[in-house]
Amino acid sequence: MSVRFARRMDGIKGSEIRELLKLTQQPEVISFAGGLPAPELFPVEGMQKAAQAVMEESPRVAMQYSTTEGFVSLREKIVERMKAKNGISATVDDVLVTSGSQQGLDFSGRVFLDEDDIVLLESPSYLGAINAFKACSPKFIEIPTDGNGMIMEELEKVIAANDRVKMIYVIPDFQNPSGRTWTLERRQKFMDIINKYEIPVIEDNPYGELRFDGESMPSLKSMDTKGLVVFLGSFSKILAPGYRIGWVCAAPEILSKYVCMKQSADLQPSTVSQLEINKFMELYSLDEHVEKIKKVYGHRRDVMLETMKAEFPEGVTYTHPQGGLFTWVVLPEYMNARELAIECIENNVAYVPGGSFFPNGGHENTFRVNYSCMPDDKIIEGVKRLAAVIKKHMK
Amino acid sequence: MSVRFARRMDGIKGSEIRELLKLTQQPEVISFAGGLPAPELFPVEGMQKAAQAVMEESPRVAMQYSTTEGFVSLREKIVERMKAKNGISATVDDVLVTSGSQQGLDFSGRVFLDEDDIVLLESPSYLGAINAFKACSPKFIEIPTDGNGMIMEELEKVIAANDRVKMIYVIPDFQNPSGRTWTLERRQKFMDIINKYEIPVIEDNPYGELRFDGESMPSLKSMDTKGLVVFLGSFSKILAPGYRIGWVCAAPEILSKYVCMKQSADLQPSTVSQLEINKFMELYSLDEHVEKIKKVYGHRRDVMLETMKAEFPEGVTYTHPQGGLFTWVVLPEYMNARELAIECIENNVAYVPGGSFFPNGGHENTFRVNYSCMPDDKIIEGVKRLAAVIKKHMK
Repeated sequence: MSVRFARRMDGIKGSEIRELLKLTQQPEVISFAGGLPAPELFPVEGMQKAAQAVMEESPRVAMQYSTTEGFVSLREKIVERMKAKNGISATVDDVLVTSGSQQGLDFSGRVFLDEDDIVLLESPSYLGAINAFKACSPKFIEIPTDGNGMIMEELEKVIAANDRVKMIYVIPDFQNPSGRTWTLERRQKFMDIINKYEIPVIEDNPYGELRFDGESMPSLKSMDTKGLVVFLGSFSKILAPGYRIGWVCAAPEILSKYVCMKQSADLQPSTVSQLEINKFMELYSLDEHVEKIKKVYGHRRDVMLETMKAEFPEGVTYTHPQGGLFTWVVLPEYMNARELAIECIENNVAYVPGGSFFPNGGHENTFRVNYSCMPDDKIIEGVKRLAAVIKKHMK
Repeated sequence: MSVRFARRMDGIKGSEIRELLKLTQQPEVISFAGGLPAPELFPVEGMQKAAQAVMEESPRVAMQYSTTEGFVSLREKIVERMKAKNGISATVDDVLVTSGSQQGLDFSGRVFLDEDDIVLLESPSYLGAINAFKACSPKFIEIPTDGNGMIMEELEKVIAANDRVKMIYVIPDFQNPSGRTWTLERRQKFMDIINKYEIPVIEDNPYGELRFDGESMPSLKSMDTKGLVVFLGSFSKILAPGYRIGWVCAAPEILSKYVCMKQSADLQPSTVSQLEINKFMELYSLDEHVEKIKKVYGHRRDVMLETMKAEFPEGVTYTHPQGGLFTWVVLPEYMNARELAIECIENNVAYVPGGSFFPNGGHENTFRVNYSCMPDDKIIEGVKRLAAVIKKHMK
């Protein structure tokens, strides 16, 4: 058999994270590799009641086909939520419900990117986005970042020098993988630049509501006067990922392309999932639930950073996220976190090697650590195991 | 604002069916335009119990992320079902759960088709597949069909003359839109041809279990000795579409590409939907449920065909499907079903103009009619309204 696949499949391989997750599912492994929400915090009783109510009140609506754009009541709630949490003024017509925000990433690539078009992103950036865009065979240019976010002088230099920049992908709040948040000044400067060059921006915001401390920052979309920003939101981290419900908010000219893409990709989001989440938000306060999550995750971040401070040798640095799920560790340059990962798994602790978050390679002395889905004692023990392996390799 | 989209977006427009459905949602319109299952047949009580059981027994599994390939217990049931209903020998590792079989179509295009590659399909073929493939900018070659399915001499001629044929898309059972089913002889001849040329085949089978009369035919996949056939199945028509659960069954070399595509497209199928359908199949007999559907749909087909026989003028023909949801009407060549559709909607009856099912255009004297989601009196009244409009235009 000699089946010929499309060329785009050459660059696509399985996600390293998913493969790692398989390796780390033995109960003895303390895994900081995933990006899972803490299951013990899921609002089980609330979703039970919501599911029951949907199946009693409107089972035949829930089980039938529905519109591509998504259930209107849910989109209304999304619009209200974006207003309250992200300062975004939108209407129901600006919102498309998607299968998680990963689908928004996939559609973004397909809507904007031809082969060899340039996509700009933070260095490092989210692996799932890089993989989604790769299916369109673009060129990636990484824009350097520091503790305050993307470095705007570098961004403008790259845009000015390249006329095939079709799209910029960013995660300004509690970035995956770095845990960093852009300052207000960087956001303003960013909007000045994209308004000048009129380049569409994908603002990925799955963690924005999970701020533990510091001041809330306005979303890029809330500062968007030209309809250039495509905002991606998700219920995965604030409610539960198993429903696969996220959304895209964009100007009509752009959103209509995403809607066409949704039609041909899978017709519509799950009616059942949409109705159940919608009902939950009618019966309960999602805000109250998010407060609970934030308290627990904020505490776990503290435990992790304190343990790192106590255990990691000098020369190893890590970020201090004000929210979200991840911190980012930088080892001395002579170390290779991909090689170390194997030794760590042998010592029953796991992370994601950082090299995967750089589409153009390099930076193999970095790794991403998740703190959201682990009790204190495991965090402490896991960081100790990490530190022990790292120390063995310090020069 | 002058945002530049990807070239692939040029060819993609909203589905005509979805736009039509919007027009026909007024209660006074009798719509034969959709392809909706009958909601009064949904196993509401069973799915209520299943949802409740899932949320009591394993809520935190249901609400969490899961594997890309899908829940193992559900895939086991899919494997059993394909064995029993389609004669397919497969293992769990050959199955990927998708967001409806529409996602299987989208992935098929993306896995196999580069720009200007040739995809072969029946003339006419399913609009949703044509739209999904269009996102990869292929060339379509339509293979003529007759009452026995695709005409194999024509197929072989086209394959022999074109070296960029990358994929063949077919619906051998109760085709959408024609309602036709391939004979055993055609299936055997088809497999001989594709084995000779080693071309991958997408066998779309959403309606296969809905046979009202005549003899069951083996699936192409069951006759596939070289791992060339990709089989697409779905729970949408045999259970309910609102869960968005379908599947792909293919040889490992091919399936691994679909799994990578699933990862980057939306990470995984909905865990909640999968667990609920899986639980339903544990608690109840899906076979019994399908028997009920078949009885009702078979009766509705009879009512529709009898009314067409009584009401349609000579010179108008229609197919006699042995199963599925659709029949296909051919008007005299001087009529235009797209123009007539507007007059029909003014007279409160709707169908889908047939021209949309031919990727290369033409055949505007045809239309598709659905009989699954309408009670007898509406079917009779609707066909009478259709007949009245048609008669007005007969020469």
